[in-house]
Amino acid sequence: MTTDFAATKAQFHLPAGITYLDGNSLGPLPKTAAARVAQTVNAEWGEMLITGWNKAGWMDQPSRIGDRIARLIGAEPGHVVMGDTLSIKVYQALASCLDLNPTRRVILSDTGNFPSDLYMAQGLCQTLGQGYTLKTVAPEDVLATIDDTIAVTLITEVDYRTGRKHDMAAITAKAHAHGALTIWDLAHSAGALPVHLSRARADFAVGCTYKYLNSGPGGPAFIYIAPRHAATTRPALSGWLGHESPFAFDQTYRPGAGIERMRVGTPPILQLAALEAALDIWDQVDLNDLRQQSLTLTDQFIAGVEASCPTLRLVTPRDHAIRGSQVSFHHPEGYAIMQALIAHGVIGDFRAPDILRFGFTPLYIDKTDTAKAIAVLSRIMAENLWDNPAYKTRAKVT
Amino acid sequence: MTTDFAATKAQFHLPAGITYLDGNSLGPLPKTAAARVAQTVNAEWGEMLITGWNKAGWMDQPSRIGDRIARLIGAEPGHVVMGDTLSIKVYQALASCLDLNPTRRVILSDTGNFPSDLYMAQGLCQTLGQGYTLKTVAPEDVLATIDDTIAVTLITEVDYRTGRKHDMAAITAKAHAHGALTIWDLAHSAGALPVHLSRARADFAVGCTYKYLNSGPGGPAFIYIAPRHAATTRPALSGWLGHESPFAFDQTYRPGAGIERMRVGTPPILQLAALEAALDIWDQVDLNDLRQQSLTLTDQFIAGVEASCPTLRLVTPRDHAIRGSQVSFHHPEGYAIMQALIAHGVIGDFRAPDILRFGFTPLYIDKTDTAKAIAVLSRIMAENLWDNPAYKTRAKVT
Repeated sequence: MTTDFAATKAQFHLPAGITYLDGNSLGPLPKTAAARVAQTVNAEWGEMLITGWNKAGWMDQPSRIGDRIARLIGAEPGHVVMGDTLSIKVYQALASCLDLNPTRRVILSDTGNFPSDLYMAQGLCQTLGQGYTLKTVAPEDVLATIDDTIAVTLITEVDYRTGRKHDMAAITAKAHAHGALTIWDLAHSAGALPVHLSRARADFAVGCTYKYLNSGPGGPAFIYIAPRHAATTRPALSGWLGHESPFAFDQTYRPGAGIERMRVGTPPILQLAALEAALDIWDQVDLNDLRQQSLTLTDQFIAGVEASCPTLRLVTPRDHAIRGSQVSFHHPEGYAIMQALIAHGVIGDFRAPDILRFGFTPLYIDKTDTAKAIAVLSRIMAENLWDNPAYKTRAKVT
Repeated sequence: MTTDFAATKAQFHLPAGITYLDGNSLGPLPKTAAARVAQTVNAEWGEMLITGWNKAGWMDQPSRIGDRIARLIGAEPGHVVMGDTLSIKVYQALASCLDLNPTRRVILSDTGNFPSDLYMAQGLCQTLGQGYTLKTVAPEDVLATIDDTIAVTLITEVDYRTGRKHDMAAITAKAHAHGALTIWDLAHSAGALPVHLSRARADFAVGCTYKYLNSGPGGPAFIYIAPRHAATTRPALSGWLGHESPFAFDQTYRPGAGIERMRVGTPPILQLAALEAALDIWDQVDLNDLRQQSLTLTDQFIAGVEASCPTLRLVTPRDHAIRGSQVSFHHPEGYAIMQALIAHGVIGDFRAPDILRFGFTPLYIDKTDTAKAIAVLSRIMAENLWDNPAYKTRAKVT
């Protein structure tokens, strides 16, 4: 193990008394992010004003940061760009793939995909008309369902509820054998485990940065296009910063080189500054070490909870080969249990209808934290501490 | 005049020695923005972590801030929401209007519209096929061109190059008389002059916040839908935060109430914090005072430059009724002249092929600044200071 996880942990602000197992939803604050954002606000925006686009390098930041993300997802340098939200990036990737595969009408996804991916696909199908449809099957049935009718698969590699991991290489290979393209949503993969987009011959990939990558609330998304498609895909969201020459102010859109055409509008410079600080920590991490530590922690948590909480039913696969970096349990009182946990200093989250979800993020969560979370959960279950009206009133977001 | 512009000016950080006439491209830093962003980073993201979505009110921020923008654009409260970039909002508005007016195939815009608006329309037309087209005419010809073939007009109220202002009420009325809908891009209107969306019976409006509203580089955009359409329009970009019940994680998209359906993905919380600080200053401003002061300053600049710089040819209308809050001049050496101006402490910008552009923003630009800018420009022209190789090398962005 070459990665020093004690050293990475020391680089995060972790509130006193909290065990944070929700970094799969919003990562914690890297200690240098506040200063980096303040520098962007004061020294760049404040002092450089409009000239910051050149002088501070704002204009190139989406590509420069894209290259740093590329390493974490096994992408070729120069083929990842930042911007917008994950839902927008899903739309761009879908529209591009349907365009590249014009004789087919079916998008294949699974019922475990994050709903926004499904919603964006539904919206695009309605806009296109002409028989375009979204077909969803159970996650386990994706591979068997791929046939010559499928235009593109839209799969989130790691299921946001169960933590079950799809086999990217196998699905991509079968899709290609049947003339389909693949879009991989890496929301729960980027920074959670090694990803090998290029090796798997993935066609498109998208992801967000505020989960495992720790860019802060509303941090920008990324998109990848395999080099073999990057120069030929037509951008559906043809914004000026994806134009070949944005500052020529031409009347007609001409796509920029390669992945640059996936840029749309003005990039969110303050959010990108926070992301940049977060990536400094990622530069110290070997993803194979990360994976090993993640499996150690999720194994520890599964064993500890199963030993002490017999009414919690494991959702996440035991098999390492198909496990992401989270552990989920079913319980009919999942909502109240999670509220009790939060009240007792362990933050995970609840996903309707009955899932307790815990993210394991080796950059700042270690075996001691995991043991503490097990102990608190065990006590809450043993003493029925969740059975309290205060924990049963649902807030808007959890 | 009830607005104290000396007091608003004191609330901006304005770098020493700079006269900043580019607030129509990127507004300067409100002094409270740095602290507001730092609070969001440290006290909210850092301490609240995921619970910030409820505790710090992040989830409602796009609507709450939308209501504050509504006052500045004459919109009904509850009908403006923040998010994404202006180009994305243009796409949403266009797709909605084509859907609401399904028997027509023509989008009408003008050659003075900002290219990204045209590009997004071109991309949408290509995606839709079926004969959808973008028709562009000269800005002066928009009104006369509206006929029964037009599905929707997509017009930027104030021309980004010339500063010429369209007649929103007249174009909207004629569009409605011919069964067309209207989308108003307020990029150079919001915070530049009073806007009366509701009174003009505009159908949709979109805009950005980093220009006259001073939200910082990459600040989020806004979108308005007239109440009569808000409950019936189908969102083309149907993301989870526009869903009726995002945290139910349903498999099928159902649009949220009214304008909420125009939300797509996770909002950029750090950028929204900066915008919130900027809007505190706007709360002190009467838009009629702003307009009066803007016309005073642009009159002063036109008169001063024309008196001293005979080779600069005015582009911006002299007629107050059709002038925005900027002044533009043609000059074949416009690029070099602007570089010389910047080197001498007056920041405006250059727009290809030959336009020198100066934004007048009464919140922090006064008559003394305007006089100084005239004096510097006069000297540069009189002494040919622009005729210097150092000023002729084009940077990527200006």
